Amino acid sequence: MDDRIKEAVDLFQEVMFYGTEKVIKGVDNPLWKEYSPEQMQMLKLIGKEGKITSSRLAILQSVHKSAISNRIKKLLQKDVIRIVQEDQQDRREKFIELTDKGKEILMKSDKAVTEYIENLLARNIEDEEIEQFLSFFRKLSHIIKMDGVE
Amino acid sequence: MDDRIKEAVDLFQEVMFYGTEKVIKGVDNPLWKEYSPEQMQMLKLIGKEGKITSSRLAILQSVHKSAISNRIKKLLQKDVIRIVQEDQQDRREKFIELTDKGKEILMKSDKAVTEYIENLLARNIEDEEIEQFLSFFRKLSHIIKMDGVE
Repeated sequence: MDDRIKEAVDLFQEVMFYGTEKVIKGVDNPLWKEYSPEQMQMLKLIGKEGKITSSRLAILQSVHKSAISNRIKKLLQKDVIRIVQEDQQDRREKFIELTDKGKEILMKSDKAVTEYIENLLARNIEDEEIEQFLSFFRKLSHIIKMDGVE
Repeated sequence: MDDRIKEAVDLFQEVMFYGTEKVIKGVDNPLWKEYSPEQMQMLKLIGKEGKITSSRLAILQSVHKSAISNRIKKLLQKDVIRIVQEDQQDRREKFIELTDKGKEILMKSDKAVTEYIENLLARNIEDEEIEQFLSFFRKLSHIIKMDGVE
């Protein structure tokens, strides 16, 4: 199995790096002039998590907390995220969540990405292959959550 | 097709964000104490490209050039990369490539990641599914390269 897993990991990383680059360059949407790729990625993560701390954002984006603070500042200025304070067990903690404007922007961006990828795949991928992809990735996502990420 | 593509993109991103986090936390290898996730990712990219400019690294890692310069400095100190100058059409350009030490570290890290993922999947994924994954991702990788990333 070893060689195939190695190839699978390599291919996944390849698609992750170069696919992301291709999408960023290929999607022709005015939003993408206003928001940098890392800002858009951050909106996506906040959207996925519902609310999230800046430390966890730093882990998920693999960057230092100082870089995250800068991104947060810019997104706050654009009114797409807000800070909420919540009581945790022993202290108040700050969470970041999307504003309505943020949710709308994320939805529009997702739509543009989906359309772009749909076009890219339409000529080359069969319906059955998409089904296999979904089935595999639903499993993967389950495996990742199952053993606990935290 | 639209809904399924949207789900596919969402699942891919989920596995990309949380899977990466899970691997980073799960892989128990002394190398991963010495090299941060973003440094290791950078070694991987340099390895994939053979030689690469810092501007292109910045694009592929979705960060500013200043962050890239810092990472390069640290990796130079660790003697895992080196700078080479090459004549391009009209000027000399600087490229980054792996040293032998860098190649060895990348190989060891890849091995640790592969083993971890192999363990994770062994209990849950059938051989046939791995074959489907490989076939789909070979195609994806081809599509990405075909239309040109540059």
